[in-house]
Amino acid sequence: MTRVRTPTPVAAWTRRDLLALRGLEPAEIRAILRRAKELDLMGPRGDELRGRTVATLFFEDSTRTRLSFTLAARRLGAEVIDLGAGASSVNKGESIVDTARVIHSMGVDAVVVRAKPAGAAALVAESLPCSVVNAGDGRHEHPTQGLLDAYALARATGRDADFDLSGLTVLIVGDVVSSRVARSNIAGLRALGARVVCVGPPALAPVSLSALGCEVSHDFDALLPQADAVMMLRVQFERHEGGAVGSSREFRSACALTRDRAARLKPAAWIMHPGPINKGLELDADLADSPRSLVLQQVRAGVPVRMACLDLCLHAASSA
Amino acid sequence: MTRVRTPTPVAAWTRRDLLALRGLEPAEIRAILRRAKELDLMGPRGDELRGRTVATLFFEDSTRTRLSFTLAARRLGAEVIDLGAGASSVNKGESIVDTARVIHSMGVDAVVVRAKPAGAAALVAESLPCSVVNAGDGRHEHPTQGLLDAYALARATGRDADFDLSGLTVLIVGDVVSSRVARSNIAGLRALGARVVCVGPPALAPVSLSALGCEVSHDFDALLPQADAVMMLRVQFERHEGGAVGSSREFRSACALTRDRAARLKPAAWIMHPGPINKGLELDADLADSPRSLVLQQVRAGVPVRMACLDLCLHAASSA
Amino acid sequence: MTRVRTPTPVAAWTRRDLLALRGLEPAEIRAILRRAKELDLMGPRGDELRGRTVATLFFEDSTRTRLSFTLAARRLGAEVIDLGAGASSVNKGESIVDTARVIHSMGVDAVVVRAKPAGAAALVAESLPCSVVNAGDGRHEHPTQGLLDAYALARATGRDADFDLSGLTVLIVGDVVSSRVARSNIAGLRALGARVVCVGPPALAPVSLSALGCEVSHDFDALLPQADAVMMLRVQFERHEGGAVGSSREFRSACALTRDRAARLKPAAWIMHPGPINKGLELDADLADSPRSLVLQQVRAGVPVRMACLDLCLHAASSA
Repeated sequence: MTRVRTPTPVAAWTRRDLLALRGLEPAEIRAILRRAKELDLMGPRGDELRGRTVATLFFEDSTRTRLSFTLAARRLGAEVIDLGAGASSVNKGESIVDTARVIHSMGVDAVVVRAKPAGAAALVAESLPCSVVNAGDGRHEHPTQGLLDAYALARATGRDADFDLSGLTVLIVGDVVSSRVARSNIAGLRALGARVVCVGPPALAPVSLSALGCEVSHDFDALLPQADAVMMLRVQFERHEGGAVGSSREFRSACALTRDRAARLKPAAWIMHPGPINKGLELDADLADSPRSLVLQQVRAGVPVRMACLDLCLHAASSA
Repeated sequence: MTRVRTPTPVAAWTRRDLLALRGLEPAEIRAILRRAKELDLMGPRGDELRGRTVATLFFEDSTRTRLSFTLAARRLGAEVIDLGAGASSVNKGESIVDTARVIHSMGVDAVVVRAKPAGAAALVAESLPCSVVNAGDGRHEHPTQGLLDAYALARATGRDADFDLSGLTVLIVGDVVSSRVARSNIAGLRALGARVVCVGPPALAPVSLSALGCEVSHDFDALLPQADAVMMLRVQFERHEGGAVGSSREFRSACALTRDRAARLKPAAWIMHPGPINKGLELDADLADSPRSLVLQQVRAGVPVRMACLDLCLHAASSA
Repeated sequence: MTRVRTPTPVAAWTRRDLLALRGLEPAEIRAILRRAKELDLMGPRGDELRGRTVATLFFEDSTRTRLSFTLAARRLGAEVIDLGAGASSVNKGESIVDTARVIHSMGVDAVVVRAKPAGAAALVAESLPCSVVNAGDGRHEHPTQGLLDAYALARATGRDADFDLSGLTVLIVGDVVSSRVARSNIAGLRALGARVVCVGPPALAPVSLSALGCEVSHDFDALLPQADAVMMLRVQFERHEGGAVGSSREFRSACALTRDRAARLKPAAWIMHPGPINKGLELDADLADSPRSLVLQQVRAGVPVRMACLDLCLHAASSA
C-alpha cells in the first residue's frame, strides 16, 4: 500500500550528524540538495525510515520549524516524538544533554535539537551514539534553513540541475550579527558559488563578518541594482541588549526593504525572508506577498530538504 | 494489512470547503450524514486519505474538538500536524491568514481552523487553494458540531435511514445569542425538517433570531411537553460584557434544565449538550449522566461525522 | 511491509486494567515481564494493536512517562491521542472521570491516566468499559515504573530468564513516604522474591512501611555492604508540608548516595533512580553517569514494558 521510493546511494554524504554548513564540502551540500529534489519529485509518502524514531527536542520554541521536521520524518515513514519546550524536564534542572540522553534511551535513532546555547547541538552529538540534526543553536547556525534557502533560490533561478549558484549576487540584509540563519546561508551560498554580501549598519553588519567568506557593506542602496536575491532577516530584538538596532525609523532608513528600494532592484531579483516577518519593519507587507517573494517557496522547500537531511544522516549512521 | 474501504461516490457533495451549514442544501447535509454512517459502520481504520496531510489550526483552544478532528483524519490514513494555539507564530504578530499560508506551504491538503473572529475560516478559505473546515469562528458557526448533533439525534430517534427529522421539535435553550453551536444547529436541523425553537430570556434569545428560520420563545416551561429533544447550551460567560446572563439564580429560573423541568418532558425526549457542561448551572448533573442524555453519543458521533467532512471535501477538491 | 509479530498467548494475564502491582500474583508480574522481553527482542514495530486507539490523560505533567507510553503504543501499531494537562477541559470544571468519559467516547480502547489523587486510575477504570493503565496516582502507585525497574534489574543481574530475584537485596532510599514509585517497587520486587529494605530517617521512612512487606531501616551506612541494588528516590519537595525533608545537609547526611557511600557498596552493586534526578542532592552526579548506574537502562526498559502492559490488557479486554 505504501509506495517504496528507491533510496539513491549518495556516496558524497558519510556524516552521521548535520551540525553546521560551515566546514562542509560543496559536494556534500549538493548531495543533500539533490536528494531533496528527488524526494520532492516523488510521492508524498515513503518507507525510507520505517521502524526508525526521530525525536524533536526544541528547548527554544519554534512551531513552524518543528512541524516542518515532523512532517519530513513522517513522510519518510518514521515515528516522531516531540519533547515540548515548556514540558521538558529541563525545567526540573536536568541539562540539555541529560534530557537528550534520556529521550535517546527510549530507542531514538535521530535527535533534532534547537537550543539557546551556541554549540548545543554539537554537545548533544558528542554525547549520543545516534544522528543529531541542528535546528538552531543560539547565534551559531541553523543549517537546514541555509539549505532550504539555497534550494528555493536554485529552483527559482533555474539552477537546480546542478545547484551551481555562481554568478549570482545575494544580499543578506539587516540584523546579521544576531542571525544563525545568516551564518548558515553565508556558508551554504558561498560553497555553491554565489557572491554573498552582508548589508546593514556597522552595529548589525560589522566588518568582522568578512572572516566568514562574505563581503560586508553598510550601503544597501548602492547594492540594490546588483542583487539577484535580497534575503531580509528578522530583527531579533530579544537578542540585543542596549541599542544596536536603534529606533525603528533609523533601522528602516538603513536597511529595510521598502517599496521604494524594491523598485530599484533588477526586475528578476527575488525577495527572501526566513520568517516570521516583522511586516512593515524589515520588509514592507506587500513585498512579502508579491510575486517576487520566495517566502512561501522557502517554507515549502523545508520539508524535502529536511527529509533529505534525515535520510542521509540516518543511512550514513547505519552504514558506519 | 490496512482494510481498504471503498469510497462511495457522493454526487450531492461538490464543495472543497465546509464553512457553515447555513446556505447548504438539505441534500448536501444528508450526503455528509450518510457518508458518516457508512464510515461509522466500517472498520476503525482506512486508507481514504493516505498520503494527504491535515493541519489543525486552533487559534482558540479546544482540546476535545481538536482531538476529534485528529482522530478523524488519522482513521482515514492522513498525516496530521497540529499548530498549538499557544505555540502559534500568531503571537509574533502574523495574522491568522499568514499563519495558515505558511502551514499550507508545508504541503497541507486540508486545514481545520478555529479562531475568535467570525468569518475567519472563510477568510482562510479565500486565501488558500486547499480544503478548509471551520471548527468554530466566533459567534458565527461550528458546522461539524451541528452535523454531529443531527447525526446523534437521528440515530437516537431511528431517523438515520434517511436523516429526515420532520415531525420532531427541538428546543435550543439558554445562551443562544452567543452560540455558534446554536447557529449551526438551527441551519442543520431546519434543513432536515425539524421544528426548532430557541428558548431563553430576551437578552439571550432575542426575537431577531427568528430571521435564522427558527421560532423564538421566552417561556421554557410552556414548551417542555412539546419537545422531542432539548439542546442545552453552555453559558459563555467570556462572551458577555455587562449582565446579559444575570445572576446564576435568575439564569436557572429562566432556562436551566433542572430535575423538575425534566420531569415534565415527554418520556422519550432526549437531553443534549455540546459540552463542556457547567454542571448545576444550565444542566443538573444527574440529568447529564442519565439514560435520557445524548451527551456522550454526541461526542462519539463527532469522529465519523468529521471523517465524512474531510473525506468529502478532499475528494471534491481533487476532482475539481 | 509491517513485520507481524506473533502474539504469545499469556494464560497468566486476564486483567483488563493495570492499576497497581500490590495484589498481583507473582505469575502475573512475570507474564508482563516475559512479554516485555519478547517484544524487546523483536523488531521495533508491529501490528498487535493496529486499529486500536490509546489515549494518554496526564492531569499531572510528566513528559518522559507520556512519551514512553506514546512510543510503546505506536510501536504496537496503535493510534495515540494525547490530552495535554494544561489544555484539558478539567480546567473548565469537569472532573477527571467526566473528561475520561468524553475522551473514551471518541472510540478509545485504552486510557493511560496520571493524576494527583490516589485512586484516580481505579476510579476511571470503574467508570469506563475500556482498559485503564495507571501512570501514577498521587502517593499510591506507579505500576509500570515498578515493572520497568524490575525488568532492568533482572536483565542487569542475569535474572531475565525466569525473572526470579530471590537472593537479591534491594535498598529503596530517601523520600520513601511520598513515593508511589517505592510502593510499586516494594510490591513488584517482593513478588519476584527479592529482599527489599526501605531506608531513610524516620520522617521519610517510617516503620509503618513494613506493612507493605518490606523491611525498614534508618541506618543507610550499615546496609551498604549488603545491597545488590540501591534505588535512590527523587526528593518530592512539592509533596511535603513542614520540614520532613530537613535541610539539604541533614538529608544528604542521612540518605544521599555520595561517592563515599558508593565506595562501600559491593563492586557489583547497581545504582538505580527513576528520574529526573536532583543531582548532588539524593545522588552525586558522577554516580548517575557511571557504569554502575542503571538509570538509562531503566528508561530504555520503559518502552517494552509498557508495550507488554498495553498488549496484555487490551487482549484480555477483547477476550473477555
